[in-house]
Amino acid sequence: MKRDGPKKIAHIGIAVSNLREAVHLYTTVLGFTLEGYETVDSEKVRIAFLKIGETRLELLEATSPDSPIARFIERRGEGIHHLAFQVDSLSERLRALQEQGINLIDPTPKQGADGNQIAFLHPSSTRGVLIELCESFQMRSEFEN
Amino acid sequence: MKRDGPKKIAHIGIAVSNLREAVHLYTTVLGFTLEGYETVDSEKVRIAFLKIGETRLELLEATSPDSPIARFIERRGEGIHHLAFQVDSLSERLRALQEQGINLIDPTPKQGADGNQIAFLHPSSTRGVLIELCESFQMRSEFEN
Repeated sequence: MKRDGPKKIAHIGIAVSNLREAVHLYTTVLGFTLEGYETVDSEKVRIAFLKIGETRLELLEATSPDSPIARFIERRGEGIHHLAFQVDSLSERLRALQEQGINLIDPTPKQGADGNQIAFLHPSSTRGVLIELCESFQMRSEFEN
Repeated sequence: MKRDGPKKIAHIGIAVSNLREAVHLYTTVLGFTLEGYETVDSEKVRIAFLKIGETRLELLEATSPDSPIARFIERRGEGIHHLAFQVDSLSERLRALQEQGINLIDPTPKQGADGNQIAFLHPSSTRGVLIELCESFQMRSEFEN
């Protein structure tokens, strides 16, 4: 059975070392609209959400030196961290990807922000791009101020 | 005067070392729809366009060892190369960015694919992200087969 392709870019994750300065760059200088902030303790990041068309940029700042974002910046410097694609049937899709030899960081969906179910594919299987697949089940809740 | 923010992600450029294998990954494995190919001699790249929502992924393969894409892969490996944002008033915007201290790779717009006017901002001013601004003047012409 042919499965539908990804619906849209859910977001683009960008690793930054200083969230306040990065938000200034994207809003005041580049003209993006800031939607709000969220802290995701499980991933040890604080996120600023910037709207663009049907998608978002997520500026990601580590909240701890052992955050994946801190390690990424240590290794590569600030920059684009991952692409998130919105899909349906995430569990079935992960099984199919695994059968096709794709190396999964999350073999089953886990809880992301906003009640989304998410899973990361390993960049060793996706030509150096860290890809997040994201299945949406509800509307975005209120942002932090 | 407050200028409007970017309208949408025009595309996401991804550097790949083997376009045929990368297209297989994104279409057969990940389920994207291939729109077509284009060779841009001035940038020494061959591009595969993949549709997703209102935007596109552009898989970029070097056509020469001195292509910017070949140099990027040599330095960083395959992966996400740049983000392109669709804007209006590109010339005025570049002048305003320069006044705000942003380092421009292209101080004035240059011709991109499809009759678009484009300009790149230097990642040293944009926290490690290579940003392309893109002003669209016409519909996409036919793709190569």
